Amino acid sequence: MKKFVNNPQQFVPEMLRGVELASAGRLRYVPEYNLIMRTDAPRDDKVSIVQGSGSGHEPAHVMIVGRGMLDAACPGDVFSAPPSDYVYETTKLLASDKGVLHIINNYTGDRMSFDMGRELAEAEDVKIATIIVDDDVAVKDSTYTVGRRGVAGNFFVIKAVGAAAEQGAELDELVRIGEHVNSVTRTMGMALTSCTPPAKGSPLFELGEDEMEMGVGIHGEPGRRREKLASANEIVDELLEAVAGDLPYSSGDQVALMINGLGGTPISELYLCYGHAHERLAERGIEVTRSYVGEYCTSLDMAGASLTLVKLDPELNKLFDAPAEVGVQIF
Amino acid sequence: MKKFVNNPQQFVPEMLRGVELASAGRLRYVPEYNLIMRTDAPRDDKVSIVQGSGSGHEPAHVMIVGRGMLDAACPGDVFSAPPSDYVYETTKLLASDKGVLHIINNYTGDRMSFDMGRELAEAEDVKIATIIVDDDVAVKDSTYTVGRRGVAGNFFVIKAVGAAAEQGAELDELVRIGEHVNSVTRTMGMALTSCTPPAKGSPLFELGEDEMEMGVGIHGEPGRRREKLASANEIVDELLEAVAGDLPYSSGDQVALMINGLGGTPISELYLCYGHAHERLAERGIEVTRSYVGEYCTSLDMAGASLTLVKLDPELNKLFDAPAEVGVQIF
Repeated sequence: MKKFVNNPQQFVPEMLRGVELASAGRLRYVPEYNLIMRTDAPRDDKVSIVQGSGSGHEPAHVMIVGRGMLDAACPGDVFSAPPSDYVYETTKLLASDKGVLHIINNYTGDRMSFDMGRELAEAEDVKIATIIVDDDVAVKDSTYTVGRRGVAGNFFVIKAVGAAAEQGAELDELVRIGEHVNSVTRTMGMALTSCTPPAKGSPLFELGEDEMEMGVGIHGEPGRRREKLASANEIVDELLEAVAGDLPYSSGDQVALMINGLGGTPISELYLCYGHAHERLAERGIEVTRSYVGEYCTSLDMAGASLTLVKLDPELNKLFDAPAEVGVQIF
Repeated sequence: MKKFVNNPQQFVPEMLRGVELASAGRLRYVPEYNLIMRTDAPRDDKVSIVQGSGSGHEPAHVMIVGRGMLDAACPGDVFSAPPSDYVYETTKLLASDKGVLHIINNYTGDRMSFDMGRELAEAEDVKIATIIVDDDVAVKDSTYTVGRRGVAGNFFVIKAVGAAAEQGAELDELVRIGEHVNSVTRTMGMALTSCTPPAKGSPLFELGEDEMEMGVGIHGEPGRRREKLASANEIVDELLEAVAGDLPYSSGDQVALMINGLGGTPISELYLCYGHAHERLAERGIEVTRSYVGEYCTSLDMAGASLTLVKLDPELNKLFDAPAEVGVQIF
């Protein structure tokens, strides 16, 4: 297995320890519940924002904990939902007078864990609300999902509600904002290669040397179809058609465009894809005013990318303009 | 070839076009000379900082052009030095009253191009100084290098001189600072896999399923030796021994620690490596006060990582604290 790994069972805890150590005191790793939280959270004048999901999607979500983003992330093992008692303990640790917001990508396992964790915490009078993210247009119903899946567009939900929470917004206002972002955000991804979970040690699925999987899920779930490998521009065109075709757009609309790498694709290739998508949108009269190119939600070491569009409006622009910093240093 | 690519000969220009389009007007791509520059450069009250090298190491260097970092990057084709006339034209475009600083990683091809480009620009009265970066402790003399190679530690040279240049430092002062950073910066890398240049379409070198290359160069040049694949901790220990052993360290010293991914390694694995390196340094009484985990200098899609240590002092801390932003958005 060609990976940096010691004991595969300790892969997630060892990674989380690294996140804490790299944060210069801004983040705390709580090994008992496998969670990363801001050391300055909870604050009673602020709703705490919590996201949980399987690991293997880094930087989502343990590396986007920080001011203006998440207050805590409670990951499960690789591609596994966090246990409900960890969700419960995380929620209790983050409980503030203004409440706790759970952001959940739409996978059955995550929803079940968060539903149970929420129920347990509510029994102890923690105020909780929930946002479900389901931005993936590729398929309706999937291996681990009823309805659409939640993927990289999740970043924009967190960015918007994280900003509003820092500004003191109440829980119900955050739910309105988060659901609004989700309603104007669409994503589709595709895989050039499979990915290898550390504990499995072999690829999760097989993909031929001349094949690609359009609409792949971030756990390697099947997408729309397997196709012959195509050029970068053809791939971008297909993703863009699916994503832009899923919401009504008019000439003059402004969007955020994200080209998200799935873990094994170099950033040079992502920028190449970005350039073509940006130009194609301009041809339709759609103006990209916010650009995100890099890794936001990955699938371990999978080569591939996803394309996300967010239809912007003055409220969202203001929230996306707000400062954000993650607990780990970039420059 | 499992890559996002159209015409392999257009890989670099198409990527650079994407960088420009993603920059919201902060960066300009000049196709004639294959360069990316800040739209607000040159400024006569500031030395212009220019780096050039082969492409394939992104985000170095075209994606770290921005305030407090580079004023321009003139990349060559993948793993090829920029032509000397492009260096010349870039230098002329960036000429300011205070001069132009060339930062060059120590590869024979890059040095030759920059020497010739400098000579041509000096003939037109541009004031130029040069810093050579050679932080790689793996080998002395190598496939494309006399002496040591310049690798990921280059980031710290740019960060420090970029900050000082924003503060108005003169050219000779920038040379002093850059040479100081280089003198306290050491790096070693290793490969788990080879990498595939777009125009070649097949791996640059072969590495067995149970092998790794310790001390690999960022163009796949041979390192110290090929070894049997080891655990993450064993790999980190070997890198750390080589890097920390190359400078005298005393208990109480403070360092910046960078775990740099080579392109195909997920960030989860980099944080796992980071955690172990941080703890090992603490055991020696060396305190990590600055942490950098992610991709800074890559080798296309190579799976692998490098470890860099910078011995800190008050002057460097102040320069590393200075604000920096790249022309492309992260949050």
